[in-house]
Amino acid sequence: MASNSFGHLFKMTTWGESHGKAMGVVIDGCPSGIFLTEQDINQELYWRKPGRNELTSPRLEEDQVEILSGLFNGQTTGAPISLIIWNKDVNSSAYEGMHTLFRPGHANYTYSNKYGIFDYRGGGRASARETVCRVAAGAIAKKILSDVGISVVAYLYSIGEIEGKIELSDHVNNVPLLQQTIRNSSLFSPSPAAEKMKGVLEEARKEGDSVGGIVEAMAFNVPCGWGDPVYEKLEANLAKAMLSIPASKGFEIGEGFKASQMRGTEHNDLFGIQNDQISFVTNHAGGTLGGISTGEPIIIKVPFKPTSSINKVQTSLNEKGEICDYRLPTGSRHDPCVAIRAVPVVEAMMALVLVDAFLMSKFCQLN
Amino acid sequence: MASNSFGHLFKMTTWGESHGKAMGVVIDGCPSGIFLTEQDINQELYWRKPGRNELTSPRLEEDQVEILSGLFNGQTTGAPISLIIWNKDVNSSAYEGMHTLFRPGHANYTYSNKYGIFDYRGGGRASARETVCRVAAGAIAKKILSDVGISVVAYLYSIGEIEGKIELSDHVNNVPLLQQTIRNSSLFSPSPAAEKMKGVLEEARKEGDSVGGIVEAMAFNVPCGWGDPVYEKLEANLAKAMLSIPASKGFEIGEGFKASQMRGTEHNDLFGIQNDQISFVTNHAGGTLGGISTGEPIIIKVPFKPTSSINKVQTSLNEKGEICDYRLPTGSRHDPCVAIRAVPVVEAMMALVLVDAFLMSKFCQLN
Amino acid sequence: MASNSFGHLFKMTTWGESHGKAMGVVIDGCPSGIFLTEQDINQELYWRKPGRNELTSPRLEEDQVEILSGLFNGQTTGAPISLIIWNKDVNSSAYEGMHTLFRPGHANYTYSNKYGIFDYRGGGRASARETVCRVAAGAIAKKILSDVGISVVAYLYSIGEIEGKIELSDHVNNVPLLQQTIRNSSLFSPSPAAEKMKGVLEEARKEGDSVGGIVEAMAFNVPCGWGDPVYEKLEANLAKAMLSIPASKGFEIGEGFKASQMRGTEHNDLFGIQNDQISFVTNHAGGTLGGISTGEPIIIKVPFKPTSSINKVQTSLNEKGEICDYRLPTGSRHDPCVAIRAVPVVEAMMALVLVDAFLMSKFCQLN
Amino acid sequence: MASNSFGHLFKMTTWGESHGKAMGVVIDGCPSGIFLTEQDINQELYWRKPGRNELTSPRLEEDQVEILSGLFNGQTTGAPISLIIWNKDVNSSAYEGMHTLFRPGHANYTYSNKYGIFDYRGGGRASARETVCRVAAGAIAKKILSDVGISVVAYLYSIGEIEGKIELSDHVNNVPLLQQTIRNSSLFSPSPAAEKMKGVLEEARKEGDSVGGIVEAMAFNVPCGWGDPVYEKLEANLAKAMLSIPASKGFEIGEGFKASQMRGTEHNDLFGIQNDQISFVTNHAGGTLGGISTGEPIIIKVPFKPTSSINKVQTSLNEKGEICDYRLPTGSRHDPCVAIRAVPVVEAMMALVLVDAFLMSKFCQLN
Repeated sequence: MASNSFGHLFKMTTWGESHGKAMGVVIDGCPSGIFLTEQDINQELYWRKPGRNELTSPRLEEDQVEILSGLFNGQTTGAPISLIIWNKDVNSSAYEGMHTLFRPGHANYTYSNKYGIFDYRGGGRASARETVCRVAAGAIAKKILSDVGISVVAYLYSIGEIEGKIELSDHVNNVPLLQQTIRNSSLFSPSPAAEKMKGVLEEARKEGDSVGGIVEAMAFNVPCGWGDPVYEKLEANLAKAMLSIPASKGFEIGEGFKASQMRGTEHNDLFGIQNDQISFVTNHAGGTLGGISTGEPIIIKVPFKPTSSINKVQTSLNEKGEICDYRLPTGSRHDPCVAIRAVPVVEAMMALVLVDAFLMSKFCQLN
Repeated sequence: MASNSFGHLFKMTTWGESHGKAMGVVIDGCPSGIFLTEQDINQELYWRKPGRNELTSPRLEEDQVEILSGLFNGQTTGAPISLIIWNKDVNSSAYEGMHTLFRPGHANYTYSNKYGIFDYRGGGRASARETVCRVAAGAIAKKILSDVGISVVAYLYSIGEIEGKIELSDHVNNVPLLQQTIRNSSLFSPSPAAEKMKGVLEEARKEGDSVGGIVEAMAFNVPCGWGDPVYEKLEANLAKAMLSIPASKGFEIGEGFKASQMRGTEHNDLFGIQNDQISFVTNHAGGTLGGISTGEPIIIKVPFKPTSSINKVQTSLNEKGEICDYRLPTGSRHDPCVAIRAVPVVEAMMALVLVDAFLMSKFCQLN
Repeated sequence: MASNSFGHLFKMTTWGESHGKAMGVVIDGCPSGIFLTEQDINQELYWRKPGRNELTSPRLEEDQVEILSGLFNGQTTGAPISLIIWNKDVNSSAYEGMHTLFRPGHANYTYSNKYGIFDYRGGGRASARETVCRVAAGAIAKKILSDVGISVVAYLYSIGEIEGKIELSDHVNNVPLLQQTIRNSSLFSPSPAAEKMKGVLEEARKEGDSVGGIVEAMAFNVPCGWGDPVYEKLEANLAKAMLSIPASKGFEIGEGFKASQMRGTEHNDLFGIQNDQISFVTNHAGGTLGGISTGEPIIIKVPFKPTSSINKVQTSLNEKGEICDYRLPTGSRHDPCVAIRAVPVVEAMMALVLVDAFLMSKFCQLN
Repeated sequence: MASNSFGHLFKMTTWGESHGKAMGVVIDGCPSGIFLTEQDINQELYWRKPGRNELTSPRLEEDQVEILSGLFNGQTTGAPISLIIWNKDVNSSAYEGMHTLFRPGHANYTYSNKYGIFDYRGGGRASARETVCRVAAGAIAKKILSDVGISVVAYLYSIGEIEGKIELSDHVNNVPLLQQTIRNSSLFSPSPAAEKMKGVLEEARKEGDSVGGIVEAMAFNVPCGWGDPVYEKLEANLAKAMLSIPASKGFEIGEGFKASQMRGTEHNDLFGIQNDQISFVTNHAGGTLGGISTGEPIIIKVPFKPTSSINKVQTSLNEKGEICDYRLPTGSRHDPCVAIRAVPVVEAMMALVLVDAFLMSKFCQLN
């Protein structure tokens, strides 16, 4: 079953294994006439790349994209855009000893069962390395959104129990500054709580343990009318996008689970008039009604589990099915909190869903 | 944009407006050889139908399905199965006065903007009435799952702040009894907390207000290997399914948001041996790794917002764009907690995702 | 495998067996704002219906459509449009004796092998009766095309070896008259050769035999730019559409097979200027280049095999696998040339492909 | 609109421009456990490559594939397989002068209109160079078919009016030899008429003109039951596949257009018993009934127009819309009959359709 594509009209197909020759993505359905450079994509890859700071995985790969097709004179032509990112820093030897062990919290058990064969080196296709392709494709999606005045911003909302929520009202009029502040933070956190978060992270790392975290993302200036009724609701596609990210365990839009504890009188967003236009007094819904954007900011949250790879002995099974000890391969990379590196990935996936909804919405009325 | 279908290989397409002639669903891709009767479907519709008890919407419709195609001698033939449920109890007059008003929390604002026209009677296509089709299609999905030994069970996990969680270990060996207990409860709650929940509900109803709630659902006996890598992860399709249900605001699998507050040492499910088979000591993951089922129960949660229709005056806008009062149409139906009626819908959608994953998983290996 | 849908953005899903309760089609992705009545559809069904003249199957069914959803105040709303045509003239008794026999030229052998069960009454799902749904959906497609100035016209090009080709240049300036002339002919032939065709047909009928024929179809005023590169070429989707019609055996666009006998100097359509606009001096290509419409009329041909059901004894196999005689069931319908009744079906399918291409072409350029 | 993919479950997505850096294809949905080498693919590319003999385009490119993903220890893993073929022999200078001219018979007019921009160098995405990706993907499809005992064979059936039809009965028991004979012929013709064909070709080439031709293809040993009813008929997908090949103008299965001139008594294939198994006495149908394979060989024909690029002066329009002379760019490649090089492409596309039908057919019955 073909399962490596995302999107309906703006469709990406990703390929590549963590320790294979390269990672790649083909974007099919990109409109013509968009100016695009490799630099546009590389700057997005920069934010995602491992080793950006001391807190994430020390893999030192320099992720540089090569655009292999779809551009002519610097513009998209409507043809498929093929992007490739060569894998450089690949040493699979550490994985050799463990190909017969099931790694707790990893996908090698399920992949092996499903396919009868598994490229265990570095996690193969199940590795978070695959997300480099999402960020590359997301860079193009953002370019398109930017051309129609829309920004997507994600940040680290929490690590463990430490929350660093931003107040939207403080930033809605200066999104570029917010974006800058987030990227200046090694944790992608614009909050004063970032210091506390670092403490939690450092503690886990020292103990060879890992912690979870939550990413919040927002889209500004999405007009009313994007998203399609019933099964292609904007939030349905956002939810699918987010749960396709490795290690994600949930999704919320607007008040999310908290809505289940509210009264209708509290949760309903009343209509009002602002600058002679219909608007909403509040935005508990998180920017959609009936699956279609309202014109308010779209706000979602995505929780990530603590990294499965930890520097501690865990119980596993060997090839004979006997219980044995499992240790992280010597020299293998260890990232104590995947939620941090997930920030640009959530942002990319949100942009991809929005561009797709944008195109899907182009022909709902005949005239 | 076609947006009224769900599923890849086992695909349903629903149609019909709340106050139209009928609701219907076409299921395409159903394997041949499944014994099926209208009664199989009607008993599922029974649990969903409004007016089943005093606590949900008093619409008294007798939902009875008619199978129009796809069966021969009582068995499916591989041809599309067309199901129709005629709308009987339809009185649209109450909606006449309000077609120019935007209803807080409803989709009429977004639909009107998107399409330039909206069938406002009873909410048209945006009405929760559409879910009758999901339950009907879900009945067939459950039949197939049942034939391969799998059960799907949903229940009301909470109303407002009152939780009534069940302990899985108390029920895993007697799922039919659990199912029975849930259906005997007017709230679909098997918990002693049901009485408290009723109190919360009754209080809201008296005040003309509404409350939210959470539905939890589980699938038992799903074998290891269902769900497809990267973008068709089992949890990605479950999340999309759940966020396509009206009034849902989120999704969790396994520990969900709580996972973000856990350490890796806590969250990783270690391997063990049970009855000479590989199994897991815990199931924090909720039954999947890397998007593929592990063989453990699949456990998800879905929060629902409080019903948007409340019996209180709210601020809205009239056709001139002036702020005005909005009142629920006289005699219109009022359901203080949509989460209750969502229970069979969550169950149906989960069954649909699983049957689809079942079929998708049929050919991952050549030999 | 779901296989009863056609189209990408303007998508129809058909259901129903020849001798079942009803035939139906759901159209998903129809833009809002199109005025539509049941009469619009019924007049198209009229041309397709059996028994319209002495030359086609004497099934006397009055095909009348009922629109069950998707309209509000006479206009489409963007919601799925559900159409139903009840089966009235159904007598399956003639088929009872033959359910164990393989019918030469019919699909009951292949369906039985594939599904292990087959609704043999009247051919079940494999019956040409299914095409009533295509014509109904095609009526809506034509309405949309008509709103943007495009006409689709099909006619009977040949029966057996008798050709009745029309000269396009005689009609291109008066398409409505051409359409009328075709529909006034019981053979859908606007040609003087129609009388000869009738002779061939009558002869075959008398002998209990059947004959094949070719349908030609044209689309006028399709602008340059419809159809998508590489795998969604306009002619690729037309070819798929045509080969999905029961009894069709081929497809041609422009010169078709004759192009294989031409020189490049003959076949290339040179550019010219007409009315200050770029145009083509000839149209050997049949209206597309590289899969994209050129602005010239789109011209295709579709051959149909002689009807498989004939009034003669044929060799078949009985349930024991022994060779036996096969006779057409007493009282069963017999249509000596399916190509005639295929004319409105070809027209409908061409319209469906064009509307889909129209919507697909809506967003190839960003600005 | 994404339009560069083909297939449902075994899905390929191609990318790359004729004069770009590389051509590539991603195959998603390939089952695991298939042994595959670059050599398996290169030998198929060898047959397609230009410059194989004096009669086709003199482009001297050495097409060598690189497998970038999807293999582990020499076997497919179920992950997407990314294939890349670098473009080496690229000199675009000859195209510089002509980017403002519309080339008769080419797609630059329609692409330019549709997208507002066109990569005119070598035909960009509309070039037949794209078919190298189809042949590469087809090599994998053939590997799978071969593993289940199925062979696909295409050959040049005619050039201009010279036919070289093979008698199937002479070869059905020795398909590998037939395949070998075809590949030993510079025209892919196993017929004694090949010499006459060469004469026709040579004559056209000398005159700077081009000729058309027909390719016939057959699949042996396809079991009964492949192909899906109604809109995914085997012949419908074959027709779409063939009309997606550049320069193809039609499609036939079995008797094709000739069926339109036959009587039912002639065309119906009667059932018989052979080797204690149900079989057919004739195969006028060409291997399918009701869109589903019968077990007989599947036989199709595809006509190709004469090459559009000819060495003669033709009328065109310049950038001011004035009529002017158009000449083939100096030094540009000229292939007098594209039908020859289309042979391996037809074979590849047929294999791709069959593998897809194979996978689609895997779950039509529950038990």
